[in-house]
Amino acid sequence: MLKVVICVSGGGTNLQAILDAKSEGRLPDVELAGVISNNRTAYALERAGAAGIPALCISPGDFGDREAFHRAFLEAMQRMEPDLIVLAGFLVSIPAAMVKAFRNRIINVHPSLIPSFCGVGYYGLRVHEKALERGVKITGATIHFVDEGMDTGTIIAQKAVEVLEQDTPKALQRRVMEEAEWILLPAVIRDIAEGKIKIGEETI
Amino acid sequence: MLKVVICVSGGGTNLQAILDAKSEGRLPDVELAGVISNNRTAYALERAGAAGIPALCISPGDFGDREAFHRAFLEAMQRMEPDLIVLAGFLVSIPAAMVKAFRNRIINVHPSLIPSFCGVGYYGLRVHEKALERGVKITGATIHFVDEGMDTGTIIAQKAVEVLEQDTPKALQRRVMEEAEWILLPAVIRDIAEGKIKIGEETI
Repeated sequence: MLKVVICVSGGGTNLQAILDAKSEGRLPDVELAGVISNNRTAYALERAGAAGIPALCISPGDFGDREAFHRAFLEAMQRMEPDLIVLAGFLVSIPAAMVKAFRNRIINVHPSLIPSFCGVGYYGLRVHEKALERGVKITGATIHFVDEGMDTGTIIAQKAVEVLEQDTPKALQRRVMEEAEWILLPAVIRDIAEGKIKIGEETI
Repeated sequence: MLKVVICVSGGGTNLQAILDAKSEGRLPDVELAGVISNNRTAYALERAGAAGIPALCISPGDFGDREAFHRAFLEAMQRMEPDLIVLAGFLVSIPAAMVKAFRNRIINVHPSLIPSFCGVGYYGLRVHEKALERGVKITGATIHFVDEGMDTGTIIAQKAVEVLEQDTPKALQRRVMEEAEWILLPAVIRDIAEGKIKIGEETI
């Protein structure tokens, strides 16, 4: 079984896509071992509770400084002993020590076709605002491994989504979720669980 | 009739896609008025000749300096009085005076999904090398209006193309042409001829 911990900051619709895939039998080799949020009021924590998955809040506000928060976050993660960490709308940048401790075992969902609209300052709704500002006709979502850079890790999967003339950032965000993120994310987790995803010669 | 002049530097496969569309009756409102190349040995010039379209070479080497070349290029273009200029694999950057003289009447084909893999240093095969280096799973092609910047003009159309695991830059270049460029380019020219493509409130 692939032991998976999911990190979420907000509503947790990507988490829900994973929970649905699990309950529908599409993730037979996956154990959803925990959900961590940096945000005490994240609805994602309720979704985790409802699904009977251990949920934990580690809030930066509860620690004296960033270092202490990072240390607590890493220690909590190490206690959970995940095989895979999934950042599913997690708005905290991952400390280098955690990247190192879980090299090629952290994946992230980015709501564009990387390298378009990624890097510093591109997160959440902002990504879709920028895509509409540039007037692209095609956008999408990317699942990638997390390394020390910002959206610079190895790309695992991408799916294109057409931009419609009447799209607002919110409408586009919703369609990218429905047509790409919620489809790609459970599929990638399953592929990792089945040993199908390789980095170079290495199967994680 | 929309009077179209096509600028090409090399083999002219995009030009051929336009010639084919014309001869198959898919561009009824388009007059192919001329082909200009900066390269005397461009096979595109032969394609134009074979199709009975006036073909012209304006080579930078025939002029004392860049300014004189730019002036001759602009003057030749103005004599042809095009409604639309199509850059179809044209490796000369368009002088600002020509952009100004033909504002919103010059379109370019770029072999990626802009803003990925565009800007200075991204042209021809290099674009596909960079896409494979980054490991994207989806690339494509873009048709955009030409402004004073490098690949910064308004996007008219984009089409996604899947990257295959065994792709080389050459194989990927070929598939992006076949699956995107050769389809988009005649379709966009047709839409412009039919007044369907607008910039802001303006129909060109």
